Amino acid sequence: MLDILILAAGKGTRMRSDLPKVLHPIGGKALVQHVAETARQVGGEQLLIIVGHGAEKVEERMAAPDVKFVLQAQQLGTGHAVQQALPQLRNDATVLILYGDVPLTRAETLQKLIAGVSETQMGLLTVNMQDPTGYGRIVRDASGAVTEIVEHKDASDEQKKIAEINTGIMAVKAKHLQKWLPALKNNNAQGEYYLTDIIAMAKADGVAIHVEQPNAVEEVEGINNRQQQAALERFYQKQKANDLMVAGVTLLDPARIDIRGNLTVGRDVVIDVNCVFEGEVELGDGVVLEPNCVIVNSKIGAGSHIKAYTHIEDSVLAADCDIGPYARLRPGTNLADGVKIGNFVETKKAVIAKGSKVNHLSYVGDAIVGSNVNVGAGTITCNYDGVNKSKTEIGDNVFVGSNSALVAPVKLGAGSTIGAGSVITKDVEAAELAIGRGKQRNIQGWERPVKKK
Amino acid sequence: MLDILILAAGKGTRMRSDLPKVLHPIGGKALVQHVAETARQVGGEQLLIIVGHGAEKVEERMAAPDVKFVLQAQQLGTGHAVQQALPQLRNDATVLILYGDVPLTRAETLQKLIAGVSETQMGLLTVNMQDPTGYGRIVRDASGAVTEIVEHKDASDEQKKIAEINTGIMAVKAKHLQKWLPALKNNNAQGEYYLTDIIAMAKADGVAIHVEQPNAVEEVEGINNRQQQAALERFYQKQKANDLMVAGVTLLDPARIDIRGNLTVGRDVVIDVNCVFEGEVELGDGVVLEPNCVIVNSKIGAGSHIKAYTHIEDSVLAADCDIGPYARLRPGTNLADGVKIGNFVETKKAVIAKGSKVNHLSYVGDAIVGSNVNVGAGTITCNYDGVNKSKTEIGDNVFVGSNSALVAPVKLGAGSTIGAGSVITKDVEAAELAIGRGKQRNIQGWERPVKKK
Amino acid sequence: MLDILILAAGKGTRMRSDLPKVLHPIGGKALVQHVAETARQVGGEQLLIIVGHGAEKVEERMAAPDVKFVLQAQQLGTGHAVQQALPQLRNDATVLILYGDVPLTRAETLQKLIAGVSETQMGLLTVNMQDPTGYGRIVRDASGAVTEIVEHKDASDEQKKIAEINTGIMAVKAKHLQKWLPALKNNNAQGEYYLTDIIAMAKADGVAIHVEQPNAVEEVEGINNRQQQAALERFYQKQKANDLMVAGVTLLDPARIDIRGNLTVGRDVVIDVNCVFEGEVELGDGVVLEPNCVIVNSKIGAGSHIKAYTHIEDSVLAADCDIGPYARLRPGTNLADGVKIGNFVETKKAVIAKGSKVNHLSYVGDAIVGSNVNVGAGTITCNYDGVNKSKTEIGDNVFVGSNSALVAPVKLGAGSTIGAGSVITKDVEAAELAIGRGKQRNIQGWERPVKKK
Repeated sequence: MLDILILAAGKGTRMRSDLPKVLHPIGGKALVQHVAETARQVGGEQLLIIVGHGAEKVEERMAAPDVKFVLQAQQLGTGHAVQQALPQLRNDATVLILYGDVPLTRAETLQKLIAGVSETQMGLLTVNMQDPTGYGRIVRDASGAVTEIVEHKDASDEQKKIAEINTGIMAVKAKHLQKWLPALKNNNAQGEYYLTDIIAMAKADGVAIHVEQPNAVEEVEGINNRQQQAALERFYQKQKANDLMVAGVTLLDPARIDIRGNLTVGRDVVIDVNCVFEGEVELGDGVVLEPNCVIVNSKIGAGSHIKAYTHIEDSVLAADCDIGPYARLRPGTNLADGVKIGNFVETKKAVIAKGSKVNHLSYVGDAIVGSNVNVGAGTITCNYDGVNKSKTEIGDNVFVGSNSALVAPVKLGAGSTIGAGSVITKDVEAAELAIGRGKQRNIQGWERPVKKK
Repeated sequence: MLDILILAAGKGTRMRSDLPKVLHPIGGKALVQHVAETARQVGGEQLLIIVGHGAEKVEERMAAPDVKFVLQAQQLGTGHAVQQALPQLRNDATVLILYGDVPLTRAETLQKLIAGVSETQMGLLTVNMQDPTGYGRIVRDASGAVTEIVEHKDASDEQKKIAEINTGIMAVKAKHLQKWLPALKNNNAQGEYYLTDIIAMAKADGVAIHVEQPNAVEEVEGINNRQQQAALERFYQKQKANDLMVAGVTLLDPARIDIRGNLTVGRDVVIDVNCVFEGEVELGDGVVLEPNCVIVNSKIGAGSHIKAYTHIEDSVLAADCDIGPYARLRPGTNLADGVKIGNFVETKKAVIAKGSKVNHLSYVGDAIVGSNVNVGAGTITCNYDGVNKSKTEIGDNVFVGSNSALVAPVKLGAGSTIGAGSVITKDVEAAELAIGRGKQRNIQGWERPVKKK
Repeated sequence: MLDILILAAGKGTRMRSDLPKVLHPIGGKALVQHVAETARQVGGEQLLIIVGHGAEKVEERMAAPDVKFVLQAQQLGTGHAVQQALPQLRNDATVLILYGDVPLTRAETLQKLIAGVSETQMGLLTVNMQDPTGYGRIVRDASGAVTEIVEHKDASDEQKKIAEINTGIMAVKAKHLQKWLPALKNNNAQGEYYLTDIIAMAKADGVAIHVEQPNAVEEVEGINNRQQQAALERFYQKQKANDLMVAGVTLLDPARIDIRGNLTVGRDVVIDVNCVFEGEVELGDGVVLEPNCVIVNSKIGAGSHIKAYTHIEDSVLAADCDIGPYARLRPGTNLADGVKIGNFVETKKAVIAKGSKVNHLSYVGDAIVGSNVNVGAGTITCNYDGVNKSKTEIGDNVFVGSNSALVAPVKLGAGSTIGAGSVITKDVEAAELAIGRGKQRNIQGWERPVKKK
């Protein structure tokens, strides 16, 4: 039985932000969301989020069936925060205490910590720091057992050399917390109740300290300012890049890729420099992404080639599509196998069938396009009359001449042809040629304008 | 009374450039401009720039009321350079000696150096190097007083272990320079006059050496080749990125931002990867910049969202504008609150009022656009007849249908509507509908062209 | 007489790829191609490539007059691989043994290695590793002579401290290989024949070991997984960036440039962040590239300015061209001096003479354009009728009004003018004005559409 507390009441003054600190993102996801997801992975049946500063915003973002919010109206220290949650703890539960601004602890690390908790033992996560200045040191006796945590300011010179420090992450039986927490005192300079004081109480009660350590110090790093946020963002992105390389992706530069969500990849995917992925993205086998692409919530089928500077959002591409450079696929774009979308082309709510091409400088919106269609350069689907959006339907094998305007609602029958430069306002039947343009007049003896003063 | 000398006569052969070395940029600004700006910050009332190689170009760039140029026709060493300026020095002045290729010394560092100068003391800036090979070592006596500077080639094995080296940056009473400099000798392998020889003269005259050190070694690093230029550029950009983070900006990657000028930011600004800023740029509260934007000399109002690959130059945007992706705002673009400029749209000398939209594939140049206007996809303001530029005026609430050409000079009255695909050459009155396009003809039985051999 | 063996039969399971390991790229070139090119530089008269996994693909890629392929059907160790090639070795040759997955060994390093080979001496390339765990250690006697290579698992604790390790790269007389290789045994845990065992045989036969070392450890690093590939890619790109800086190029960020091929530069070239070069690219004196450009197999003339987000492929630009931002020059673009191609413009098979401009939102394909031509915004050359491509010919001094469609084949005579918004289907004679557009009608009292439910 596992209850998980997440302390998320802090203000984060040094972030210099109107957003509560725990809602700032790493990898596109709020810090406290990272913590809550990890909490669920380790099997927390109930999540108690201690809120304070910006409580409403945090509650709005984190509301879920397994979450209860506990208000810490005044921030009087970590011990005080946990005290607020005491009434919510189940008597027989093991309680894991996490921090909403420490986003990257791995579930495996926490599982080992929890595994060490019993009636006679509590878990404490520590880490060795190259520079432990400012942190509470872990003091051990000759047998290696933890005897106390000494705050930096109270540490002797000898103790200051200890590299092992307290991360604040603990796992304890609820019963122990129920006994110890009410006994916390705030007779210190800050007038705060410190959770770390329970270590001494544990010792007094003969409860041993089971220590675990994370794989990397970044697992227990908190975020108090923008520099720390940026540093953890980079650590997170390096991990993501490494995961992709383990999965067999060719990354041209692992330091120049950003993944803010879940990126699923097939075999032999190539991702060139400076690509950004947001939300849920799937790349099929053999997909190649050229530099500077942005892909949001989309699926890209096997063998598709996405050229430089392409922006794809909420779209689905089947196999062997050839997209970009400078293509923008907006939400609702759905491309069948072998579709080609070229440079300076925007699509939106566009369902385009097999093998069709929109190669240059076009806007295809609110359109259903058949297979083997060629949409010429500079073609615009005029889908909006100022108040309503209307549909353009283009049959199989249609050829739309360049620089045409298709004024929706309009249907172009299968195999029809639109003359270049036409404005099409009426439906075209199958196999018809439609032309709608002015007649050319050539005028001799015309004088060009002259430069005005 | 402070005179500041800036030595800027060197050739910089290893830069392999036709540009004088001191005119090469860091952060978009010439090396010697950095030095001159710092000189002004520390209160230099007169700046004496010693020029030689490329003197004309340096003088052209650096001309200012507080600057005098002193020609060093032949480059015979640092002492020789300072000698040329002796006649310009004011007798009672403190003289600060800087180098035009050492751009990043902080004013605070120099102020401390100057503060140590008196009739009986001169200032010397030194730094500790991890690898001091090649540099002049600072020799101190048992009391810690500087006794001499020993050049690397003349140093004993013991002296070679000294990590503290001479940066060349000094502050001295003019009177001392007037006495010492004429006594410099060039009896060395290079036949040059070394400024460092005055340290020995100071000692002989009972003038103590007041030493200061910079916060970072990069403050005193000079640029002699492209690698050093690139390394200092990165150091400079890291500092700029850090300043932004201290101010509360979310930087997705502090290693992928470039600021060449002054970037002023509001609260809760987000700057995604690979954005470049040039000149004077202001970003209001809550501005979000997506990846790969280039912003030059522009103001962007609070709450505006600038999407990926947007290029903005010499433009002013009010609040809550929604720009890009792939938008190019050229000089003279002036957008009111809530204006939307979408993909593949170019604006130039375009004043656009509140809430208007130019969403796709358009060119709006030399135009005044009212509020609540919708400019359809593929619209072109035809502002140029080959010799003259003319204006397009669009009233409030106008709807311009897609793929229209507005042939300037032309006025569209308030509330007027332009049919899609029209060429508009004559003014349109308020509330009128204007159409100018060919009539559509549908032709049956048309044979498509066949493939030529 | 030099025979060079390249072992290229391995599978590379950890690459998780369908491509044979040695065909994966570094700097845009297959690993084994790097090795073969280096082999040719050191003067290998015949290259023997040992193939196995993916043999067909490797042979297809590497076929050349000086290459022979030797099949190693089963991969039974490095010694076994070399055994397969024994019949192909020339009796009097020196044999250099390289690895198809070790791409970055410098020719100079190998030349020194070969220079040490004689009837009484063989060459061995070793390197000192910070962490030699897992590698075969080089054991030397008191005189410094190599006595044996001890595999990590067989090494004593003392031997494990040896930092010098075997790279596997050797140079040996063919006669020695012919004697030693048949004597190799596979009585080890893996049941493989190890090439390193010939060191012991050399010693037994009184053949001394001549040792050389590379300048950097990366010269001898092999690629077994995507992380190693990415790391060597970055090392390679840093070297390329450094070469450019030595040549006098201003690189705004040496960590953000990618060169996959040969980049030749003139004097005072500036390359801004995140540019990518592929194939053979030449940049003339004073060329400036803004951020995020991609340049493929192209020549860019002196003084040309390439603005941000420009994509150039298989094109030739003369001097002082002004391109982009967001320009896409496709294959066959050939621009004379001073041509300007602006934003959202695509060119393809376009020959454009001196001083002409295509400034905005246009497609110019299969076109010959004279000098001093102005192509207005939104102009499309309609070069494709669905089956055939046709030419557009534009004479000198032509003015093409904006939003025009030029339906090829079509010729615009010198000095002719095309009215904005025209569809041009017939030739225009010199100096004529051609207009082809609908007549404008202004309609009063028109009711705008209303919002549908």
